[in-house]
Amino acid sequence: MRVGVLALLLAIAVALPGCRAEPRADRPTAEDEAEIRAVIERQKQAWNQGDIETFMQGYHRSPDLLFTSGGKIRRGFDETLARYQEKYVTGGAMGHLEFTEVELQPVGAVGAVALGHWKLTETPEAGEGVFTLVLTKVEGRWGIVHDHTSLAVP
Amino acid sequence: MRVGVLALLLAIAVALPGCRAEPRADRPTAEDEAEIRAVIERQKQAWNQGDIETFMQGYHRSPDLLFTSGGKIRRGFDETLARYQEKYVTGGAMGHLEFTEVELQPVGAVGAVALGHWKLTETPEAGEGVFTLVLTKVEGRWGIVHDHTSLAVP
Repeated sequence: MRVGVLALLLAIAVALPGCRAEPRADRPTAEDEAEIRAVIERQKQAWNQGDIETFMQGYHRSPDLLFTSGGKIRRGFDETLARYQEKYVTGGAMGHLEFTEVELQPVGAVGAVALGHWKLTETPEAGEGVFTLVLTKVEGRWGIVHDHTSLAVP
Repeated sequence: MRVGVLALLLAIAVALPGCRAEPRADRPTAEDEAEIRAVIERQKQAWNQGDIETFMQGYHRSPDLLFTSGGKIRRGFDETLARYQEKYVTGGAMGHLEFTEVELQPVGAVGAVALGHWKLTETPEAGEGVFTLVLTKVEGRWGIVHDHTSLAVP
């Protein structure tokens, strides 16, 4: 009987989900990395198709989004989308955007930083520099919460 | 006897640490926020005292650190410390640094972004702009892993 109880206890200890050592990752997985890179690639493609709506899908739809560039700070998904739509009524002036040397840093299991070079051509606002994107995984989806884009100093 | 076994099983289920619903935070706590702000404040004070060693303690001591500014990317704690030490031999040219309007965004429970304005005076390299710092909590300590500092566009 004692052996029977012990076996039962062991069986329960093994079976109860919460009792197992949980293999919780402390950084994004390879699959996460592929999804993050896909978010950034889709943004580039959408920009080059003059598709602001799809471009903006790379960001989380949140009022807490932060964008900074040239010393200015802007916030909020809806405000940013409206500003882009107002600025690029035709899509013609958006130019051609390229990203290169994009590298990722993990921030815990549900966060990451993407650092890369950007180059915008075929528009009066042409330029190049570096971008930092901070992404988080919310309800299974990776999206950008913070975007710092800066110009290269000649 | 059946009641005795059941009571024992219940007692074990309650007592085994892994079996309890873990109250895991999905964002940094108020205490974390205070620690993050202290890291940034200490950096400012150290800079203004010409103390590069203490300034650098705000960063994690890792070869994976990323710094970007003016379109250039630099990496690594040791490389950056050496570069600063070489540049500011006397400490006299470091100038006076101020941070204002520093705001924090959570990135999961062990990550955060700090966005703020910086202004450097009393040096030939005076300027102002915005910084993005990405911090992670590693072994109970908050430190910067990514630093994107940019100039305001006049």
